Amino acid sequence: MTYENILKDAGLTRAEFTGGELKVHTPVDGSEIAALKVHTISEADAQIAGANKAFKAWRTVPAPRRGELIRLLGEELRKEKENLGRLVTLECGKIYQEGLGEVQEMIDICDFAVGLSRQLYGLTIASERPGHAMRETWHPMGVCGVITAFNFPVAPWCWNAALAIVCGDPVIWKPSEKTPLTALAVQKICERVCQKFGDDAPRDLFQVLVGERELGELLTASKDVAIVSATGSVPMGRAVAGDMAKRLGRTILELGGNNAMIVALSADLEMAVRAIVFSAVGTAGQRCTTLRRLIVHKDVYDQLIPRLTKAYSTLPIGSPLEEDTLIGPLIDDQAMSAMEQAIEQAKSEGGTVHGGGRALNDQFPSAAYVHPAIAEMPEQSQIMHLETFAPILYAVKYSTIEEAIEIHNAVPQGLSSCIFSTDIRETELFLSGVGSDCGIANVNIGPSGAEIGGAFGGEKDTGGGRESGSDAWKGYMRRQTNTINYSTELPLAQGIVFDI
Amino acid sequence: MTYENILKDAGLTRAEFTGGELKVHTPVDGSEIAALKVHTISEADAQIAGANKAFKAWRTVPAPRRGELIRLLGEELRKEKENLGRLVTLECGKIYQEGLGEVQEMIDICDFAVGLSRQLYGLTIASERPGHAMRETWHPMGVCGVITAFNFPVAPWCWNAALAIVCGDPVIWKPSEKTPLTALAVQKICERVCQKFGDDAPRDLFQVLVGERELGELLTASKDVAIVSATGSVPMGRAVAGDMAKRLGRTILELGGNNAMIVALSADLEMAVRAIVFSAVGTAGQRCTTLRRLIVHKDVYDQLIPRLTKAYSTLPIGSPLEEDTLIGPLIDDQAMSAMEQAIEQAKSEGGTVHGGGRALNDQFPSAAYVHPAIAEMPEQSQIMHLETFAPILYAVKYSTIEEAIEIHNAVPQGLSSCIFSTDIRETELFLSGVGSDCGIANVNIGPSGAEIGGAFGGEKDTGGGRESGSDAWKGYMRRQTNTINYSTELPLAQGIVFDI
Amino acid sequence: MTYENILKDAGLTRAEFTGGELKVHTPVDGSEIAALKVHTISEADAQIAGANKAFKAWRTVPAPRRGELIRLLGEELRKEKENLGRLVTLECGKIYQEGLGEVQEMIDICDFAVGLSRQLYGLTIASERPGHAMRETWHPMGVCGVITAFNFPVAPWCWNAALAIVCGDPVIWKPSEKTPLTALAVQKICERVCQKFGDDAPRDLFQVLVGERELGELLTASKDVAIVSATGSVPMGRAVAGDMAKRLGRTILELGGNNAMIVALSADLEMAVRAIVFSAVGTAGQRCTTLRRLIVHKDVYDQLIPRLTKAYSTLPIGSPLEEDTLIGPLIDDQAMSAMEQAIEQAKSEGGTVHGGGRALNDQFPSAAYVHPAIAEMPEQSQIMHLETFAPILYAVKYSTIEEAIEIHNAVPQGLSSCIFSTDIRETELFLSGVGSDCGIANVNIGPSGAEIGGAFGGEKDTGGGRESGSDAWKGYMRRQTNTINYSTELPLAQGIVFDI
Amino acid sequence: MTYENILKDAGLTRAEFTGGELKVHTPVDGSEIAALKVHTISEADAQIAGANKAFKAWRTVPAPRRGELIRLLGEELRKEKENLGRLVTLECGKIYQEGLGEVQEMIDICDFAVGLSRQLYGLTIASERPGHAMRETWHPMGVCGVITAFNFPVAPWCWNAALAIVCGDPVIWKPSEKTPLTALAVQKICERVCQKFGDDAPRDLFQVLVGERELGELLTASKDVAIVSATGSVPMGRAVAGDMAKRLGRTILELGGNNAMIVALSADLEMAVRAIVFSAVGTAGQRCTTLRRLIVHKDVYDQLIPRLTKAYSTLPIGSPLEEDTLIGPLIDDQAMSAMEQAIEQAKSEGGTVHGGGRALNDQFPSAAYVHPAIAEMPEQSQIMHLETFAPILYAVKYSTIEEAIEIHNAVPQGLSSCIFSTDIRETELFLSGVGSDCGIANVNIGPSGAEIGGAFGGEKDTGGGRESGSDAWKGYMRRQTNTINYSTELPLAQGIVFDI
Repeated sequence: MTYENILKDAGLTRAEFTGGELKVHTPVDGSEIAALKVHTISEADAQIAGANKAFKAWRTVPAPRRGELIRLLGEELRKEKENLGRLVTLECGKIYQEGLGEVQEMIDICDFAVGLSRQLYGLTIASERPGHAMRETWHPMGVCGVITAFNFPVAPWCWNAALAIVCGDPVIWKPSEKTPLTALAVQKICERVCQKFGDDAPRDLFQVLVGERELGELLTASKDVAIVSATGSVPMGRAVAGDMAKRLGRTILELGGNNAMIVALSADLEMAVRAIVFSAVGTAGQRCTTLRRLIVHKDVYDQLIPRLTKAYSTLPIGSPLEEDTLIGPLIDDQAMSAMEQAIEQAKSEGGTVHGGGRALNDQFPSAAYVHPAIAEMPEQSQIMHLETFAPILYAVKYSTIEEAIEIHNAVPQGLSSCIFSTDIRETELFLSGVGSDCGIANVNIGPSGAEIGGAFGGEKDTGGGRESGSDAWKGYMRRQTNTINYSTELPLAQGIVFDI
Repeated sequence: MTYENILKDAGLTRAEFTGGELKVHTPVDGSEIAALKVHTISEADAQIAGANKAFKAWRTVPAPRRGELIRLLGEELRKEKENLGRLVTLECGKIYQEGLGEVQEMIDICDFAVGLSRQLYGLTIASERPGHAMRETWHPMGVCGVITAFNFPVAPWCWNAALAIVCGDPVIWKPSEKTPLTALAVQKICERVCQKFGDDAPRDLFQVLVGERELGELLTASKDVAIVSATGSVPMGRAVAGDMAKRLGRTILELGGNNAMIVALSADLEMAVRAIVFSAVGTAGQRCTTLRRLIVHKDVYDQLIPRLTKAYSTLPIGSPLEEDTLIGPLIDDQAMSAMEQAIEQAKSEGGTVHGGGRALNDQFPSAAYVHPAIAEMPEQSQIMHLETFAPILYAVKYSTIEEAIEIHNAVPQGLSSCIFSTDIRETELFLSGVGSDCGIANVNIGPSGAEIGGAFGGEKDTGGGRESGSDAWKGYMRRQTNTINYSTELPLAQGIVFDI
Repeated sequence: MTYENILKDAGLTRAEFTGGELKVHTPVDGSEIAALKVHTISEADAQIAGANKAFKAWRTVPAPRRGELIRLLGEELRKEKENLGRLVTLECGKIYQEGLGEVQEMIDICDFAVGLSRQLYGLTIASERPGHAMRETWHPMGVCGVITAFNFPVAPWCWNAALAIVCGDPVIWKPSEKTPLTALAVQKICERVCQKFGDDAPRDLFQVLVGERELGELLTASKDVAIVSATGSVPMGRAVAGDMAKRLGRTILELGGNNAMIVALSADLEMAVRAIVFSAVGTAGQRCTTLRRLIVHKDVYDQLIPRLTKAYSTLPIGSPLEEDTLIGPLIDDQAMSAMEQAIEQAKSEGGTVHGGGRALNDQFPSAAYVHPAIAEMPEQSQIMHLETFAPILYAVKYSTIEEAIEIHNAVPQGLSSCIFSTDIRETELFLSGVGSDCGIANVNIGPSGAEIGGAFGGEKDTGGGRESGSDAWKGYMRRQTNTINYSTELPLAQGIVFDI
Repeated sequence: MTYENILKDAGLTRAEFTGGELKVHTPVDGSEIAALKVHTISEADAQIAGANKAFKAWRTVPAPRRGELIRLLGEELRKEKENLGRLVTLECGKIYQEGLGEVQEMIDICDFAVGLSRQLYGLTIASERPGHAMRETWHPMGVCGVITAFNFPVAPWCWNAALAIVCGDPVIWKPSEKTPLTALAVQKICERVCQKFGDDAPRDLFQVLVGERELGELLTASKDVAIVSATGSVPMGRAVAGDMAKRLGRTILELGGNNAMIVALSADLEMAVRAIVFSAVGTAGQRCTTLRRLIVHKDVYDQLIPRLTKAYSTLPIGSPLEEDTLIGPLIDDQAMSAMEQAIEQAKSEGGTVHGGGRALNDQFPSAAYVHPAIAEMPEQSQIMHLETFAPILYAVKYSTIEEAIEIHNAVPQGLSSCIFSTDIRETELFLSGVGSDCGIANVNIGPSGAEIGGAFGGEKDTGGGRESGSDAWKGYMRRQTNTINYSTELPLAQGIVFDI
């Protein structure tokens, strides 16, 4: 299948993906696959204005009806799963299975959001005053800007958009400039769905901003964008947070992870090996939840590492479009350089590195294929505190579970974490208030691959936002506390007397 | 009762309130009542360090046991209600009834927090994978800095502290430099309570920072203060938000309000008048929820305003320590000047002003007593978009409920609001997603005087934070999403296949 | 369209609806439309055994996957909406619009249940003991018997079944012997859906029991039917409750209603008239939520009743399959006799009756068409305490809202209720703890036509069960409270000391 | 301290505990300690009438204010903890530590209920119709009858009463005829508290019915008792359920338990032994959560049993008023006979019994002291399916965890359960939908001694009720689903069209 056919199967027309100034290269072989028109500042301003107009209308559409739109979106995504999954693979380089998984995640969150659309529960609350009723309700908030990263080009948008739309908020999507094609393809699906839905879906409910960073900054700067949900690096997150603080706007930040696994003495090593490999090399180490640090009990370390290096040595590297591939390319040369530098630093900090280095150079001279690396470190050194977006897995030893947790929590990021252990005392300790300080903490599964039913995100440098399941939807609504006096008296709270 | 006796009855010793460099004046008559030592930067650093040490211990104390500490605090506050209430009055100038009400609010939130201490509910969640359990738990977050304003010198601290302590977070309190005495008095109560509680209350669980703005900035700058909850002006809030954004810290902001009441055609005017007077002149117009704007149906306007101006003319102004007083002083001369300027601007914008101007000048030459003012405005002019912390009530007319809501929402602040109407179509519209854009929206009661059972706070320039009831406690904890695999299989979410 | 074609379009084959001993007559014209085989006791026993076997398998299928089955059911119902809606009309006699509405309700609850399937939230709870975690989880309960009534032949089954299946419970459906055809048609859809779903849908997940009352009694008597959810009359409910009490089984009862509307002085009479007519004559007065009692303010009574009687006089009575019909037939002659007797009793109790009496006798001599009746009563007499399943609307006057509420609550049933008033003091009072004692209480809409997002059911003789939305799903699961000790200590709750 | 002094210290006067026809004997030595007047049927009827009158008033008192009454009750119980705890010991024979624990449980639930009093959360719900609001609120339900058993004479009452009172429901308490004194003592405390609370506590908010079974039957028979919460035996529960079914009343049943512990291969045997001893012999085996069955992995069985029998042999048996006693008496001779018969049956079913038999016969000839027994059984025989209210612990072996769970669930009761294992695969399986079928399932703690924060109760013959924490409070309120139309349109749910 030609690249062009992949684009066309995903619903894009030649006119849409050619002739513009933004060159899109596939990491599969580095070739240019599209040249997109970018939005100007004034077009972006018009999008914001359009979205606010849409908001006025959309907030009056009952939430269960808004849910129906998302149900139709889910249905359409089911139909387009293969086509869209393949485009994900082409554009960001993750293997096709993961491309499909990403679309499945979109579908799952749609199902979840449809159910939510008849809930959006606030509370009725006991009032201390006779003849008074108290309650809280959740109302649509306003326009929601969604800034996404290249590594998950579509799912995080959908986590945000499915909830935002059900909550009554129009969405403006600023995808990574590296992966705008999937965004355009999804946008076309959305437009088709809106048409099917009928007249009460206003114009400009879904919009995409194609372009560079300054378009994202426009979203964070504008008073007319009530919420900005951003996925990306910690520096990007700080910039967004700073811009939003100036105007006291609301953010949902999902930034970097530096995710670890503790492998305890009682761990099922067979399962641990499989989990480690998938978590560390899946998406070529470019998931925000990628496993980056291995904290291994000293008495199993010497069993585990050889099994891992052996497994690593057999992993099929290749085009992510090929069925047997498990490791596709990095997104670009810059990523490969960062990996190389990190490996150098690891070595200089005393590490012994297995693997690493460029792969398939002959076959794909313009792409960034690498051998995944395992770096055995004498202790948790400086490089291990950084998130390098590449398949490098650092390993250190520990003696006691308390020590393991201390190592675990000593990095600035706080996204995901896990322990492999069959000992409930260790596992519950890890999940307790003195255990992992991450937003996600798993037992006997890797740190990546969250289900959409839970809230996704983490504290510390990860930014504190939560997306997807649980009550993450509250991030897209405004809460209102109501007290209704239906008596003919006017008692004050706290029993204050004030007689005029 | 001498001022010194009020201080002593509230538990402070002469040594504690004399000899320092921070002069505290009572707004009652402007006299100096205390001179407190201020904390140095290094003392403040030591407080932060101490609080973090306390955190390590306190987070391991079971929450219901933490609740017991707050129960004891509530009991002690019950005993000290009168003494503390009087000190509130002396230090911030609100009338004694309101001083008592503020302490009652502390007591109420303690009761609420005790109940919470056996809840702090997370969720168990259905997992999509066989042999997997999913759940979310809430864990202690870290040290909580609480920055409070002069107008509510103790209650907002307690909203924060009662929850924070139950949630496992030590508290460092930076009170307004205008009202440090009440903070010291409460701190002594806390210390007494900790002693009674016994050994598992660590040192430095409760601390107070006496001094100027730079101490607050220390809290916002420090990575070791996990949460900063701040009550105050919008500019202060922006500064806090900006500092916290740099380090991706968590804020709970409760900033300004520009609270309005819609008085509809069907309103019970008798009740409305009483509600307006209390809401507009209570605490001499210095509540964040003070009623500042009156949006009156054109056909009742001419009945309402004369009743109001008449009621205003009879309100007893005087020392807030006197039983009959309903209007005490402003906090200081600066506040009085701000009021005067606002009135001037109102006039220049076409307003007709009733009342206003200095009061009791002979009796209290060094204090800032004022006559409350009603400003009839031709439309919602510029001055009405600002929050002037003084008893000025602006009044405008409206014709349709939609117009009234539009006027209502046209200001940048979003704290509190209300409608007086007996027509359910109007009241429910006002409470709906197209109604009031405030965090608090009431029917047939004024905008001030919230019960602690609801979440308190608002959107827009009010800063987005929520304190007190409902699930505001989540602001003091970190959420952790857990997936536990207790099977011997390793299925991936979203059905991804990745076989090594 | 012939009746036979309606059956066939709904997916039934001649072999399925002919040749049996249970004669099914359509209330449209009284003709026999089917003769179904009834299940024997031993077949019913086998169904129970099969369902329990299915339970063992189904409870291990993850809930979100169970939700997928219900999603597919919803999709299939969307496709079959018209066909199934027409069969509902044919078999129970409600007009086609209402037949469609009933299928739509099935679809809605499916959407809702899909969302639930990733929730089924229990709680994680703060424990009072160090090193302990406390939580509650909800587990599948067992086989769920669903007994339904003729008037809603399919929707209540789906309220129960969609939730039960998502909760992990196989369903055995005992439809009314008057409406088994719709049940068979739905069963065929379910079987098709299970096939599409694949192997992890066990045999006997959905089953239907065709026959008389003794089959229902088998369900209530069997220890192997964990839950019986029954919709029907109060005497039926008492019988079910008594049987289940003997074996301490769980019931969900939705029994009779004697639903009233208070029409207040401030009511929008235009809206009230429309609401009354739909609520009182829709489904020919055979909804459990049918409006049966009108409690009218004495000062609007004389305006309201003539408008009602006028509206009544123009309502098109006829075949429910005809598009213009608003009033179809009663289910059978017995129902018509009950109506006649009730009218006689109303007269003997001082009532003035408008309407009533047989209709369309010439056209449909074997059917039970009636003129809807309004009975003006001098006070709430004996007949008004009974639920007569027919379109009789009793009207009485009141003077004060308190009196109206007292009349309202004086009947033994407690299902649905409403008030028409624009005065928020009245409406909130009606919704308060001293207002309506019904499970459903509405404002400015009739008592019938609940959305599926709320819990449906009521107290008193209505039986106390809740179905459909909110947390009604808990009725289909068992709650388990867990305390996990992951420490090496063994502290007792309540601080008990017991040292061995 | 004389028995009479214990009664007097608990606040009872001689006049109150002498001269009546109901003889109360202390199980400590079998002596008569009181002779109480019993209530006549007409007095009981008057109590019901009084309670209903109280209901009309109490339901209008705001819930947080109702909570204040319970707060005062908690305070008073704190003061009376020792006095009341000692009376519990005297009257029901449990050791003083457990008597104190029972009062502590009362205090804990009071704290919890106070917090609840500002919650009692219903939901606001998204409506499918424009201009409509949907919500659910919880209202006071009516009079709550509480029937308690001798073994927990006060705590279960308080679980019910603290919630019921906060929920707005007056309480009528029918204590066991074996333990009416503690009820009277608590009643006096309640009356004192009501007086302190002031006028808005109506007469007859708390009442006690002293007498035999027919008084309980009066509660279950009366339409005017909205809720009956009963703790006791399965036959009692069936009778209550049957009576209530006749009138479709609401029950909360907490009946028998036949609680087991699985001791797995990986169990910490040291902890298991301590947990077993407390759970099996605490309260002399007369807790509803007493450990009755031990399901031990075959490879640890031979280590465990000898340690247990050794521990059993050293347990101090004696007066529960003595500080060192761990095993007090059974309630009466009947209980001792039942124990003897059960042991005989166990032997006849192949069991080897350690211990058992009368103890301290010389010292307490009229009391029922026994040696606790361990019965090693060849398999789970007939006697193991019964709950014998005495300290008999049956032990059987298992090979696989699946087998252990099957044995575990094979009894008719479903109250409490636990597993001792450090293997998370076993523990999570035990807590999963295919694990324990009990309402309570613990890990590494015994089956008894629940914290009040969780819901207490179980399925199957245990009766299905839930008391205490989580959302058990809903059992004391009625739920009302509201839809409010504030538009001028009248759309029907499910999109039905019905134009008149």
